[in-house]
Amino acid sequence: MPDLPASRRSDVLPFRAMDVLAEANLMLARGEPVISLAVGQPEAPTPAAAIAAADEHLKRGRVAYTDAPGLPKLRERIARHYREAHDVEIAPSRVMVTTGSSAGFNLAFLAAFDAGARIALASPGYPAYRNILRVLGLEPVEIPVDVSTGYLLTAEHLAEVHAKTPIDGVLVASPANPTGTVTPPEELKRLIDFADENGIRFISDEIYHRLAYSGGEATALSFSDRPFVVNSFSKYYCMTGWRIGWIVLPPEMVRVAERIGQSLYISAPELSQVAATAVFDATAELDGVRETYVRNRDLLMRELPALGFRDIAPIDGAFYAYAGIPEGETSASEFCRRILSECHVAMTPGIDFDLVRGERFVRISYACGNAALEEAVVRMKRLLTR
Amino acid sequence: MPDLPASRRSDVLPFRAMDVLAEANLMLARGEPVISLAVGQPEAPTPAAAIAAADEHLKRGRVAYTDAPGLPKLRERIARHYREAHDVEIAPSRVMVTTGSSAGFNLAFLAAFDAGARIALASPGYPAYRNILRVLGLEPVEIPVDVSTGYLLTAEHLAEVHAKTPIDGVLVASPANPTGTVTPPEELKRLIDFADENGIRFISDEIYHRLAYSGGEATALSFSDRPFVVNSFSKYYCMTGWRIGWIVLPPEMVRVAERIGQSLYISAPELSQVAATAVFDATAELDGVRETYVRNRDLLMRELPALGFRDIAPIDGAFYAYAGIPEGETSASEFCRRILSECHVAMTPGIDFDLVRGERFVRISYACGNAALEEAVVRMKRLLTR
Repeated sequence: MPDLPASRRSDVLPFRAMDVLAEANLMLARGEPVISLAVGQPEAPTPAAAIAAADEHLKRGRVAYTDAPGLPKLRERIARHYREAHDVEIAPSRVMVTTGSSAGFNLAFLAAFDAGARIALASPGYPAYRNILRVLGLEPVEIPVDVSTGYLLTAEHLAEVHAKTPIDGVLVASPANPTGTVTPPEELKRLIDFADENGIRFISDEIYHRLAYSGGEATALSFSDRPFVVNSFSKYYCMTGWRIGWIVLPPEMVRVAERIGQSLYISAPELSQVAATAVFDATAELDGVRETYVRNRDLLMRELPALGFRDIAPIDGAFYAYAGIPEGETSASEFCRRILSECHVAMTPGIDFDLVRGERFVRISYACGNAALEEAVVRMKRLLTR
Repeated sequence: MPDLPASRRSDVLPFRAMDVLAEANLMLARGEPVISLAVGQPEAPTPAAAIAAADEHLKRGRVAYTDAPGLPKLRERIARHYREAHDVEIAPSRVMVTTGSSAGFNLAFLAAFDAGARIALASPGYPAYRNILRVLGLEPVEIPVDVSTGYLLTAEHLAEVHAKTPIDGVLVASPANPTGTVTPPEELKRLIDFADENGIRFISDEIYHRLAYSGGEATALSFSDRPFVVNSFSKYYCMTGWRIGWIVLPPEMVRVAERIGQSLYISAPELSQVAATAVFDATAELDGVRETYVRNRDLLMRELPALGFRDIAPIDGAFYAYAGIPEGETSASEFCRRILSECHVAMTPGIDFDLVRGERFVRISYACGNAALEEAVVRMKRLLTR
């Protein structure tokens, strides 16, 4: 029988953080005391208000498709959030509920770009961007940023890349994964202005909003109607496993995205939409979780240098520390394997985020509880400073 | 500022059934007594066993990412299902849990095909196939089938199309949407043999399994390891809004699909996975729902001809009747609009499923309760036979 090879476009790199998660889950199932600092996932439970809303809906027994753009109540609540948090008026019709930000990126890329389009993004950056772009036939144009400038992507970077070979889109995350970098509002405006003036589609990843620890958080919607704004209930709102997020669409893209979404997703999970509608009322509980991250961040800022980590990124937002591995370590992959087997602490090698320089870095997620992070630091200290 | 047009590939047709759903939901919100026969969605609630499992998990408060291929318990339970229902041994590692069959199709297409590949499928057929293929740069090769042969796609059809211009893949649904056609096991084997022998990737849509009313249901896995087999908890299992399904992968595609899934979906919703694991124990409840469909089917087989519908498809499986509009009606879209506004009965114009001949047909979903369908028939009778 003739061979049936896999497609060329499926030859993307694995998302190593997910591989580490799978390995850590296996170890946990064997009863090993793994502390996971690998995946960008809050240890805190989903807020009680969201659980209660889901539970009430569940008791009615029917969990059904919604309209493809999502439940009207949730879309209205999200629009209201922009009014309250950012003083921006957004028509609820521009809000589309998505199955996590994963679906948001996929929809934005498909709606905006044809095969061959070039999309600029900062490196290090979230690996799924690169992988989704590649399977869709798009070309990620990775712009190296580094610790000397706080990993900030600027309008000058864009201008330089665009002058060489024109780009069709740019994706900026603020706060950023894995670096924690927060793009200041005035720089975000400059980036968007450059994009708008040059016919470049701007995609703003705002999934770590409400997790900026030194201020400076802005939405792209404050500056222009043209960006796609992707957001999620996974991070600040502690709803990872519900797979629920949203996208704010440029007005002329509303029907385009709905049309693709109807076929590609039908709708986001209904129970998750119901829970998400209620989670906006859980600010007190969620700000308590955020306080945990603030303490974890303080601990890492103090202890990472003491453990020998170098070139530490700003840790200004999200819940990640991106740091160079200690002197004498040869590769981040090897270092992470050793820390996992000897300390039972899982973290992600930087090669996930930066194909060129990543083997010198690790990403440490501090979305766990304070006690877990303290214990992880103690274990690493025992190994690394002996 | 330069224009930022939508991508060419986003210019797919809307999934009209979803548009009808949105309109019907608006009418319901205004208090109008709409009976929806438009969307392929069971009116029956999710089985109690699944609700109870979700509820128990919910009480623990944490809803998290799972491994990208899904919870091991669910993957094992699905593998066991093939042993029990089809006497086929499948390694659980070949089972990937997906966010509905929508994700299953997307993953299969991306793993198997590069841009430009030609995929054969029967027309009329599920419109999302065509739309997903198009946004991924693939070419749907629609093979017209009609009522004279019970809408059956055969190995002869494939051979004829492949001889003219080679195809790279073929997708067969059995039972089929919208026609209800069940491909007999021996024909399914002939189709798969032809595909295997000619280096054509076979994709078997089995989401309407357990809803074949005259027998003849087989899984592609009984005949070959090479097909992608897509299935879902939405239909027989009454779990549409949970967005949960699965795919059985050819062994060499397991890691390929996991790699794409990690970036494109992260994982399926955890709560839905927990509920799905329990739903296999709800056979008594679900077979009761199936009995409702059997009664609805009898009613339609009796009443559709009396209402003037013509060229009625076999109604052998799934929960759809695909039928020609009564004599004198000029277009299905116009006919559906009139039935919705005058009878408050929503159904889907055939143009969703067949771009060439669809304006002469409608799809009637009979996944509702017996009383609702009886009432819909009474209302239509009042209009159509006056």
